[in-house]
Formats: sequence, structure tokens, C-alpha cells
Amino acid sequence: MKQITIVGLGLIGGSLALALRGFEDYEVVGAVRSDETMRIAAARGAADRLTKDIKAAVQTADVTILCAPPQGIVALLQEYKDDFKPGSLVTDVCGIKTAVMEAAKVLPASVDFIGGHPMAGRETSGMAHAEKEMFRGAHYLLTPEKTSTPEHIALLRRMAMYLGCRDVVETTPLQHDELIAYTSQVMHIMAVAVCDDPDLFSCRGFEGNSFRDCTRVAALDVPLWTQLFSMNVDALCKMIRRLEENLKSYREVLEAGDTKRLAEKLTYSANRKRQMNLE
Amino acid sequence: MKQITIVGLGLIGGSLALALRGFEDYEVVGAVRSDETMRIAAARGAADRLTKDIKAAVQTADVTILCAPPQGIVALLQEYKDDFKPGSLVTDVCGIKTAVMEAAKVLPASVDFIGGHPMAGRETSGMAHAEKEMFRGAHYLLTPEKTSTPEHIALLRRMAMYLGCRDVVETTPLQHDELIAYTSQVMHIMAVAVCDDPDLFSCRGFEGNSFRDCTRVAALDVPLWTQLFSMNVDALCKMIRRLEENLKSYREVLEAGDTKRLAEKLTYSANRKRQMNLE
Repeated sequence: MKQITIVGLGLIGGSLALALRGFEDYEVVGAVRSDETMRIAAARGAADRLTKDIKAAVQTADVTILCAPPQGIVALLQEYKDDFKPGSLVTDVCGIKTAVMEAAKVLPASVDFIGGHPMAGRETSGMAHAEKEMFRGAHYLLTPEKTSTPEHIALLRRMAMYLGCRDVVETTPLQHDELIAYTSQVMHIMAVAVCDDPDLFSCRGFEGNSFRDCTRVAALDVPLWTQLFSMNVDALCKMIRRLEENLKSYREVLEAGDTKRLAEKLTYSANRKRQMNLE
Repeated sequence: MKQITIVGLGLIGGSLALALRGFEDYEVVGAVRSDETMRIAAARGAADRLTKDIKAAVQTADVTILCAPPQGIVALLQEYKDDFKPGSLVTDVCGIKTAVMEAAKVLPASVDFIGGHPMAGRETSGMAHAEKEMFRGAHYLLTPEKTSTPEHIALLRRMAMYLGCRDVVETTPLQHDELIAYTSQVMHIMAVAVCDDPDLFSCRGFEGNSFRDCTRVAALDVPLWTQLFSMNVDALCKMIRRLEENLKSYREVLEAGDTKRLAEKLTYSANRKRQMNLE
């Protein structure tokens, strides 16, 4: 029997530990530091086996999945760099990839590190909120190295399908971080910015689905997102600036009372949205 | 038997015509202009009776619900002002209220006009897309006049409950338009502004739920929203400006590389979001 070790059973690691059980001929091992997480993971039936000996769990693993915030991943790579089994696959689940791929350079050449990012999450954290169905319908992004083996990429693809993901998208760390700044990070900055409006609490009873949907992600995990934003600051700021400009452009047409131009702009944007969904 | 006449069977009017059947001892009459809408409404079983004689349908109605974009409501009020049954209730379903309440001043004193706004919608339009369950869980906003009768307000409340609404919120036209600029109109402007980003089509495969949720409403009904935005331009521009400032404030903290301040700001905003949901 082969072995997958998941290091860290938070929201994402814990969900993987629930969802990966039964995957091919792999034993799923959950490796954690805290007794409390161990207790909850055991009660919820996460992984086939749980251990607090991360080093040993990594040494025997054919696949190691590092599940932590970005700086935690960097620290884990440094701490266990000499313990990963030669020829094994090491991956992560982190929402930024350039900094992680850079940190993975500490690994010996015998270890195949492929960056991973399943695009799923909730406005909660910890093993207690982990869900087996977390990854259903999500894109699973991969940033392989030139030296990554086709076998390991294929294995991650099968794993993503077993999790119920929509598809697997291979990309470069740079493209990943640029596009994620737009599709994910700016959505979170928008959500918190909307909640800073002085009218937030007065608007109870006046909110519809668009408000509920746009602000949903504002109740974010602060330490995690502080790291994700800070470690992708150039791409993120570029995208925020573009959004500010697009908002200003709508505001100026409104202030000018130019109804014809407003209708043209709305037609342009709405068509882009429709085209985005259809193609 | 009493009579409710719904004038206009588009997405919202059509949904009302489907959902109001069986409400107390009211016959639901759908009054439309186009043969095509009449045909679809008949095929879908909307209303108890359909007619193209709007004038007659209004003259015998105890309750008239005007369902049209804002300028359409203004035109209907003008056209049928002398036809509404004395003592009857007239209401609308329009997303802005100051301009509608102003237009309703053409009505004789014998008619009780109460502004209405069920906060529901879809990224589609027309009778063909109407849904019986459209209003499930939605707030139903009312802007009664000082002269409105308690009986008519109570009737609209029972109607909203019959539709499956979450609650009924009474407000003033001015407060309605200010808060709706924030909770609904800015969410739509944000969604279209996000779709104007040059990276929109490159980001296929990189979008998660936050992106899908925030841009959902961008595929909007352009003529309708051009009117809604244009007829509430002061409140809307004030709210867009505030959002621009809140985004800029986050961007500046990011650009300064001030991680501590970033974590503080995120804590503040995320707590506001959590408080908003809990109270």
C-alpha cells in the first residue's frame, strides 16, 4: 500500500483528509501538531491514520500535501527538506504560488515539488469546519516544474477528479498569482471594502442576494489573508487600481448625466459577462 | 370575489402573476400589451385571467400592481390616473422610490398609492423566465404615504407573506433610495466594473465562488438598470465614491508594505461583517 501524508489538518487539509480516504491504493495519513486538532480529526474520521510525528509521516510518504498558510508552507519546506522520501511527490494547497515555488528550491533534486491550489474555501477555519465536499466543482490549479514527472502530474489529476473538482488547470507561478489577484484576492478586498461603508448596519432589511453574495467572503481568516495579500502585493495592487479606475469611469458617466453613454457602457460590460459564461 | 390586477407581465410581474394565484379571495388578473407575452403567460398558467384591456382591468381592481421599469411606471400612472377604482390600493414593484412616489402625485386623493419593492430579481427578463418562487426569502420594502390606510398596509404585508418573503420593511422613499444605492446598485456597478478588466477572458479556469458570486449580476437588463441608476444618481455616486475610497485605503496600506496595519484593517472589516450577520 502506498501512502499520502497530509501535513496540517485545518479547513483545507482536514477536508482533504476526509475526501481522500479510499483514493486508489493509498493510505491517507494526517500529521498534526495540536492535540485538539488530533481529537477532532479522530472524531470526524479524517484520514486512515493520525499521527503527531510529522517527520516519520513524511519519511514514508509517496505523496506529501503541505496544508498551511504561505509562511507555514515555507517553514515546513525548510524544516523537513531532508526528510521527504527520495522520488516522492510533495505538493501544497496554498493560494499564492510564486513565493511557494521559490521556497521549494530548498528541496533536494530527488524530490518532485508541484505547486497546487484547489480553488475552494469557506468563511471558517479549522478541522471542525472541514467538509468532504469542499472541492466539488472547483478548479484545481497546478504549477509543475520543468523537471516534474508526467506520472506525478497525472497522479495529482486523478486525485483532483476523486475530490470532485471541475478540472485541473496547469499554469506558471507568475500567471497564477496575476490571475488569482484578479479572480480571488480583489473579490475579497472588495468584500471588506464594502463592509467598511458607514451605512453597513443601517442597511439591515435592505439587502438582496447581490449584497449577500458580494460580502460573503468578507468574514475572512485574517492571519491567512494578511499573508496571501502581502505575498502577492504587486499583482494585487495593480488589479485594485484597475477596479478603482473602472468604478470611477462609471461614476463619471453617471455624474455627467449621460444616459446614452451609460447604456452603452452597461451593454459592453453585460455582454462581456455573458460571453465569459458562454464560451 | 375581489380583484388584483397586475399590469405588465415581465420577470417580476409575471412571477407575481404565478405566485399570487390562490391568495385569499382575490381573482388575479394579468393585463398586458403584447400578444407574445399573453401567449406565454397563458401557457404558463399565470394569473386567473388575462386581458389586453388594461383600462377595464384597472377600473374593477381592488388592488393594482404596476410592474414596469421606472419610466414605465411613471407613464402608467399618468395614463390610468382617472381609471383606478376609488378607494382602491395601487402599488408598484420598482427598485427606486423617490421618483415613483413623486409621479404618484398625479393620482386623485381617492386612490391609495403605496410604493413597493420586493428585493428579488434574476439576470434574465420577461414572462418566459418568471418564477413562482422568485420572492422566497426576499425583503419586501414598502413606502406608504401618511394618508395610506392601515388596511392597505396590512393587505400588502399578508401578500408578501403569501409570496414567501422573509419580511416586510416600511421606510421612506429617501431612505429607501439611499440604502438601495448601497446594497443593490453599487453591487451591480461593481459587478460590471469587474467585467471591464482586460484580464476577464484570460481568467477562465481561475475563477472561484467569490468571482462567480460577485460578477453574477453583471449580465443585467440594460434598459432597466440604465433607468434605475439614472433616476438615483446622487445617492449612487456618493456610494461609489465611498467604495473607491475604501478600496484606495486598502491599496495604500498594501503598497506601504504595512502588514500590521493590514491585519488591523482586515480584522476591523471582517468583524463588521460578522456583526452584521449575527445581530
